[in-house]
Order: sequence, then structure tokens, then C-alpha cells
Amino acid sequence: MKMLYEGKAKQVFLTENPNEYIVHYKDDATAFNGEKKDQLAGKGQLNNAISSHIFTMLNEKGIKTHFIKQIDERDMLVKKVTILPLEVIIRNISAGSMAKRLDLKEGIAFETPIFEFCYKRDDLGDPLINDDHAIALGIVTREEVEFIKQETFKINEILKDFFMKANLKLVDFKIEYGKTEDGEIILADEISPDTCRLWDKDTDKKLDKDRFRRDLGSVIEGYQEVLERIK
Amino acid sequence: MKMLYEGKAKQVFLTENPNEYIVHYKDDATAFNGEKKDQLAGKGQLNNAISSHIFTMLNEKGIKTHFIKQIDERDMLVKKVTILPLEVIIRNISAGSMAKRLDLKEGIAFETPIFEFCYKRDDLGDPLINDDHAIALGIVTREEVEFIKQETFKINEILKDFFMKANLKLVDFKIEYGKTEDGEIILADEISPDTCRLWDKDTDKKLDKDRFRRDLGSVIEGYQEVLERIK
Repeated sequence: MKMLYEGKAKQVFLTENPNEYIVHYKDDATAFNGEKKDQLAGKGQLNNAISSHIFTMLNEKGIKTHFIKQIDERDMLVKKVTILPLEVIIRNISAGSMAKRLDLKEGIAFETPIFEFCYKRDDLGDPLINDDHAIALGIVTREEVEFIKQETFKINEILKDFFMKANLKLVDFKIEYGKTEDGEIILADEISPDTCRLWDKDTDKKLDKDRFRRDLGSVIEGYQEVLERIK
Repeated sequence: MKMLYEGKAKQVFLTENPNEYIVHYKDDATAFNGEKKDQLAGKGQLNNAISSHIFTMLNEKGIKTHFIKQIDERDMLVKKVTILPLEVIIRNISAGSMAKRLDLKEGIAFETPIFEFCYKRDDLGDPLINDDHAIALGIVTREEVEFIKQETFKINEILKDFFMKANLKLVDFKIEYGKTEDGEIILADEISPDTCRLWDKDTDKKLDKDRFRRDLGSVIEGYQEVLERIK
């Protein structure tokens, strides 16, 4: 199969069907814009299983996603889309780079979720931007910004409920959208402990990539626990 | 007179009237969050004269500002307000930190102006934030954000016209708003070549603080030329 793209944690392959790609999940873990790197045996399988499970649930709830089906342990079949160079972030509780940037303590629950765009440009460090920048950069129209915001807040509500049933707080998450050849914008990329902060409802124990970022140990065990809880 | 506050380029004094302050313009020039510093003889007078002239014009056009009157060469009388810790920025043409941050060439005219908030916190480097952050930080309500945006776009249109009559392009500017005791939000701070990028309409010659930031020389001559052109 011809590889179309290799990212930090995934590879994308062409298939015989020009409208479908295969996403392959690797064991590579990176943080701080690639400065910290490691291999975590089994992460690829776990993230593929978790993402597939969540995309299936979102598809059933009427959210349009690129997900077609899980193929095997490390691979999922997806619709062909062109990924928008935007990281779309929702923050329900203060944590991570945003808490540091604004000098907030971690763990503050916001009255309403905070929506953020970052410009997906590794060479610039994926800077925070606002709606006007995203439009001026020619990435999206004002109408597309409004659609993405509405869709993302809807996804947040679904995911918050979904994780709460697994006794997990959805602290924040990053998603990406893609555009189909028809110009439709649909949810793409992955949804996993690499892209969501998930804390145990009662103890605030971290069960996400912060275990790797902050050298808390038991990274894979954390991801494994997320998979078991949501299934 | 009791000094209430000293900033990088101005001092604020109490007066006998509890509803009025005096703003005193200093000759200090700073850039890059205070890393670059100098004294520019005469800058205080020029910025006071330019700001007073522009605030008078804005008051006449129906924009509510803190400006009451110019008192003398370096001092203006203003209404007492509590400054919101927000830098409110409009960018009509790409330049400066934003061009660098987003890897844009300088001099691109945007189809519609770009609006930005920065969180006024020297210790954090005045980071860019979005509407949701400003609200979550408790600085403004959603309604106040909408008012500030509308008012700032209106001010941009007035200032663009005003400077264009002086053969100057308004590239971008930073303003600050203050809240009166009645809770009304009005334009405050200053409007000068310290806070606006101004380029000659025909030659793009810089007549603003970038002459200081970039060691282009003739800083005061640039400010002087702005004052002469707008009068």
C-alpha cells in the first residue's frame, strides 16, 4: 500500500478505493512539539480500539465522522478527507499549556467550555489563533467557523456524558476536521487518551497522555483502563 | 499630586476631583515586553499632542472616551476608569508579531480587519487570548465582548479615514478600554505612534514605534511628521 502521510502517532495509506484511506496507529509517543519521544508497546492497538469505539458511538449519535470501520488491531478504514490545518480544542477544566499560559491553577471547572483554534504548523509550534486568523489564513470561511464551533460543542456534550458513564471527567480534548471532495466538513483524526485529558471522576487520577508528558509512569496501563471502562 | 500608577510610557495621577485623573506622558520608550529601553527626548509631548488630537476627534464622532482635555504639553485630564486588563488590537495589514507568529509576509492587506485580544499581564508576556478566555478569566461578559468588538471596528473605520486624509495607512493599532463606576465601558489609554503602526500611503515609510523597535533611526522625526500631517 502507498503511504500518503506519516504523522507523529499515525500513518495514512491509500487503498484501492479512491474514496477511502487506511489509518495505521503506531506505538510512537511524542510530546512538547516532538521534543520528548518514546515508544510505548501496545499504544497503537489501544488508541485504535478506543478511537474506533468512540467514532462508532459518535456516528450512531448523528455526528458525521471519517470513520468507516476498524479493520484489525492497528488499522481503521476511513473516508478520504483533506485535513484542515487546525487543532480544534475544547477545555472544560483548566489544565496543561492553557493553565500555564494564563497562570491558572489546574482543575478549575469553567462555567462554559472554552473553545480554541490552534494553527497546525509544527514549524511555528502550533500557535493559538482566533476565528479571524483562521479566516485570514484562508483555512475556513466565517460560516465554516460557525459550523465547526457548533459541531464541536455538540461533540463535547456527547463525549462528556459518554466518559462520565465510565467515571471519567473529560478535562479537555483536541480534534481535527477534514473536508470531503463535496466540501463537507466532518470529524476526522482520532479520539483517544493521546488527544483527550481524562481524569478519574473521584480521585482525579490522570489516565491520559499526561502520564507520558509528566513521567507519571504506567502510561499504557492508563490507556488500557480507559478502554476497559468505556467498553 | 499622588501617583496612582506608573506604566512604561505614562504616569497616572489623582486630582482633587475624585472622578478625574491626570495622565502624564513620559519620554521613555520600551519594546519587546520591556527588553529594549531608551529615552527619546520629546516623545512625551508628541504622544500627548497626537493622542489629545485624536481623542478630541473621536469624542466629536460620538465615540465615548476617557479624554476630557489637554492640560499642558505632557498632561491630559481624563475620566476616572478602571482599565480592563486587555490589549484590544485591530490589524488591517499584516505586520509585526502577528506576521512572525503566523509566518506571513508583512504588508498583506486583509479582506476584513483582524480583531485580537491579548491578556495584559507583563509577567506572562501579554499572551494572545480569544473571547472565551477573556470571559473565563472574569475580565468581561459575553455581552461586553460584543460591545468592545463593535466599538473597536467602528473606531477602526474612523481612524482609517482620519489617517488616510493625512496620507497615512493605519496598519494596526492597540487600544485599551476602561470601566467607569457606572459600569460603562469607554475607550481609554492613548492613541499615538507608540500604539498604531502608520505607514506613508505611497512609500510605506514607517512613521511609528517600529522605527525604535527596528533601529531605523529618526524616531522622533517620524512622530513629529505624524503630528504635522494630522493637524
